[in-house]
Amino acid sequence: MEPNTRIGTLAIIGAGLIGGSFALALKAAGRVERVLGVGRSLDSLEQAKALSVIDEVATMEQAAQEADLILVAVPVGSFANVFATLKPHLTDRVILTDAGSTKGNVVKVARKFLQERVSQFVPAHPMAGSHLCGPQAARADLYVDRKLILCPLPENDPETVSVVESMWRACGARILEMPWEQHDEAVAAISHLPHWLASMYVYQITQSADADVKFEVAGTGFADFTRVAQGSDEMWRDIFMVNRDAVCSQLAEFEAQLAQARKALEREDFDWIVQMLRVSAKARQDWEKQR
Amino acid sequence: MEPNTRIGTLAIIGAGLIGGSFALALKAAGRVERVLGVGRSLDSLEQAKALSVIDEVATMEQAAQEADLILVAVPVGSFANVFATLKPHLTDRVILTDAGSTKGNVVKVARKFLQERVSQFVPAHPMAGSHLCGPQAARADLYVDRKLILCPLPENDPETVSVVESMWRACGARILEMPWEQHDEAVAAISHLPHWLASMYVYQITQSADADVKFEVAGTGFADFTRVAQGSDEMWRDIFMVNRDAVCSQLAEFEAQLAQARKALEREDFDWIVQMLRVSAKARQDWEKQR
Repeated sequence: MEPNTRIGTLAIIGAGLIGGSFALALKAAGRVERVLGVGRSLDSLEQAKALSVIDEVATMEQAAQEADLILVAVPVGSFANVFATLKPHLTDRVILTDAGSTKGNVVKVARKFLQERVSQFVPAHPMAGSHLCGPQAARADLYVDRKLILCPLPENDPETVSVVESMWRACGARILEMPWEQHDEAVAAISHLPHWLASMYVYQITQSADADVKFEVAGTGFADFTRVAQGSDEMWRDIFMVNRDAVCSQLAEFEAQLAQARKALEREDFDWIVQMLRVSAKARQDWEKQR
Repeated sequence: MEPNTRIGTLAIIGAGLIGGSFALALKAAGRVERVLGVGRSLDSLEQAKALSVIDEVATMEQAAQEADLILVAVPVGSFANVFATLKPHLTDRVILTDAGSTKGNVVKVARKFLQERVSQFVPAHPMAGSHLCGPQAARADLYVDRKLILCPLPENDPETVSVVESMWRACGARILEMPWEQHDEAVAAISHLPHWLASMYVYQITQSADADVKFEVAGTGFADFTRVAQGSDEMWRDIFMVNRDAVCSQLAEFEAQLAQARKALEREDFDWIVQMLRVSAKARQDWEKQR
């Protein structure tokens, strides 16, 4: 199997938004002939088939034996079970990648359960998603112009890495390569912390006496700030579980900075506040331009 | 002047996004014949005229003498000065409204500087905006389906309130009426707190050693969560200044809840965390449906 060539069979473990969009994108790009779908819910798999997101419903064993490429797209808490079930049936030719939101834990369970076949697994994290889920939310263009963070392992050979990179690029993603340790630190700051803050913020409103008036008054700023809080609780529980240390340490730091900033507001230190607002606004505007 | 009838002259004090959009909307609705623009920057006013957002550049004195309706759309820290300058020249027929993001302070300075003419002023707050600013950002549809919070004063007579309500409704806004005290509590929670948190969050990233990698990794969730942080620092400084007490007390409460939630994460209390994530996701989804 070479980069840019077609592959015969893709198997997606988890045929929801993330796995389904990968399948649709590779089909649309003419990079895959046949898609097998594996999952917990037969209803959901039948729906994926009805929507032509997958061609056939399959078992883990079939996927391991028949696929040229396997994408693991389940909540990160389920990876150990997926790898353990696939392992005895994997062929020499199959290449694996994933879409897990954390990488340290995934690499650890991959080494433990894939054993010598960990060399066939190239960890990845597409920075794309939606608060929608399920195969009905899958779209061929979900990854277009989105970042894909690739965290190759020392065990991978370069050709295997190239194939995985080429498939994600065929989905339209822009590839960013970095060690998984750097990935986990960065996403704790850029993705997990906002999710925690937005969720806690909405939670605080629901617990307040005049929640109705507050929701009634809420406008576009509130809508943007809290959009991520609509995500799947199961997916996010797993993320907070496996990336707990990085999230906790960044949270503690943020809480300390919040307390300091509030003291500036209490003592009416508007020079500091304007400086903070200016630095933030400029950084956010610059980021938008370079996006 | 009766509700739903045309008015002759509208004056906007501050011909930027908020004032300019009000003028464009009322012109598009055929509710106003002539628009005067008053402001600090002559360049900006000339630009507003070139863009047909206003018809004429005017002074405060002219606006007070010639207008049937005046919209005050400047940062809330400038209201005292605007009211004091307008006051000696106001006619019996003119009605005033505003677009300030806080109301307690505005009401206080209106009573102080408009004196007996405070009965002609009906405080309002459109829950619409953008991180863009200036007359070039003004749009006739900015207020369409956005909420407009109207906080009538005991001094207002009902007919005056109806006129103001009718003009905002002609812009496409949905009217919500409440006392200014309730408004200030609600917007502290729903608008000022998110702005503070999003700005502090971006600020923390800019202060971290690996800010570049973090911004590089950032995707759509980060974009949504931080969009409000691009707002005008001058406008937000004023908001935090005048609504300081409500913001500080809600911030302190949020910080306490954040610390508690982090402890749940540290002791791996995932039952609590899943419950929190579920309550938030459902509340946010329900809000979206009723929006």
